[in-house]
Parts: sequence; C-alpha cells; structure tokens
Amino acid sequence: METAGAQSRADRPDRRSEQVCPDFHTAIELVGRRWAGAILWTLSERPRYFAELGAGVPGISDRLLSRRLRELEQSGLVARSVQEGNPPRVSYSLTEKGHALEPALAALQDWARSWKLSS
Amino acid sequence: METAGAQSRADRPDRRSEQVCPDFHTAIELVGRRWAGAILWTLSERPRYFAELGAGVPGISDRLLSRRLRELEQSGLVARSVQEGNPPRVSYSLTEKGHALEPALAALQDWARSWKLSS
Repeated sequence: METAGAQSRADRPDRRSEQVCPDFHTAIELVGRRWAGAILWTLSERPRYFAELGAGVPGISDRLLSRRLRELEQSGLVARSVQEGNPPRVSYSLTEKGHALEPALAALQDWARSWKLSS
Repeated sequence: METAGAQSRADRPDRRSEQVCPDFHTAIELVGRRWAGAILWTLSERPRYFAELGAGVPGISDRLLSRRLRELEQSGLVARSVQEGNPPRVSYSLTEKGHALEPALAALQDWARSWKLSS
C-alpha cells in the first residue's frame, strides 16, 4: 500500500487539502440526486415536454419529476419555456451550463458500458 | 426550440431508445448516492484508513461512511484490506473498476470548477 506523508502530499498542488474539493462535492451531490442524472441525460439529446421526460425516465413519479426539474432550473442547468396555445405546453431544455456537463455524463456512460454496470 | 421527429432520432444510432440508457442510470445512481462521490474522490488520491476517510469527507457520520464503503465494496469499486497489528488497521482503496471512474470524476470536477459551483 502506498503511504503518502505530508511531504509527498505537498507535491500535489491540485490536491492541496485532505478534504474533498467543495466544487466537486457540490457537483456530484447535485447531479447524483436521484433521477437528476437521468433527466439531464434525456435532455442532452434535445428539449423535451414534461410527458416525454416522464416516459424517458422510467420509474419516476410526476411529482418527483416536477421537483427535480425545479431544482435543476434553480441550479441553472435546465431552462423551462412555455409555448402559447390551448393548452399551453411546457418544455425543458439544457442551459449552456447544463450542456457543459455532457462530457462528464459521457465519461460516466463510457465507464458504465465498459464495466457492464446494468447487467 | 429544436423539434426532432422520429426521422431525425433514427439518425442517432447510439441513442436507439427514448429511454435513458440503463448502464448510465445505474452508474449515476451508484456514484451519485449521497457521499459516494466524495468517498471515491478521496480514495482516488491514495488508499485511506477509515478515520482518514471520515476526515476527508466532512459531514458524514461513521455509520453512513461504513454503509457507503460496504456498498462500494459490493459494487466492486472499493477494496477493503486489513493490516495485521494490535489493533489491526483497516484501509480502503479503489479497485481497477474504481480507478476507471477517475476520468468521469475529473470531468465532473472540471465542470464544477468552470461554473464555480460551490460559490
């Protein structure tokens, strides 16, 4: 086992603290929230109506889907837009910040596929 | 707003289904579990003793840390090893599968930093 002391830790300028990076922690707790990743994934393809999101994210209730969408909107990852009509239709899309997450989501997907995670 | 019909969806062979990819969903639900990302991040630097992990992941209780470590062990991401001694010491490290997650964690960290997520 590698046993890095204070000296060798000092050689890693990008890991200054022994504590987990707050940015990273905030990010993973946000994206990792139950169903949030699946919602972001579904939106990464194209904007979606609420019902499409429900169908694309199996197992989620409408109530929880609403809540997650609101949270993702508040975090600036998802934009909500209302199209006029009768009835008006509400669609959701990724913001620039949300789209910027795609490389991370793709890397996670690559890992999941390589290790056949769902089987 | 982009409105992709059935035709244009058929042009995307890697997105055959309208439903979120099961591998991806399993992965994000595993890694995104509360504190799991922070634990993996902390272990990505080097193996850690239990107490070090507790210090590196602020806010987690010993009980929850034990539980997450057990789950990550069961998922094959983390290996537990016992060093003889009095008392014996237990350390945790990433497996090959766990290390393979690092590009995804790094991409997430890049995103978090770019968008100053914790501020």
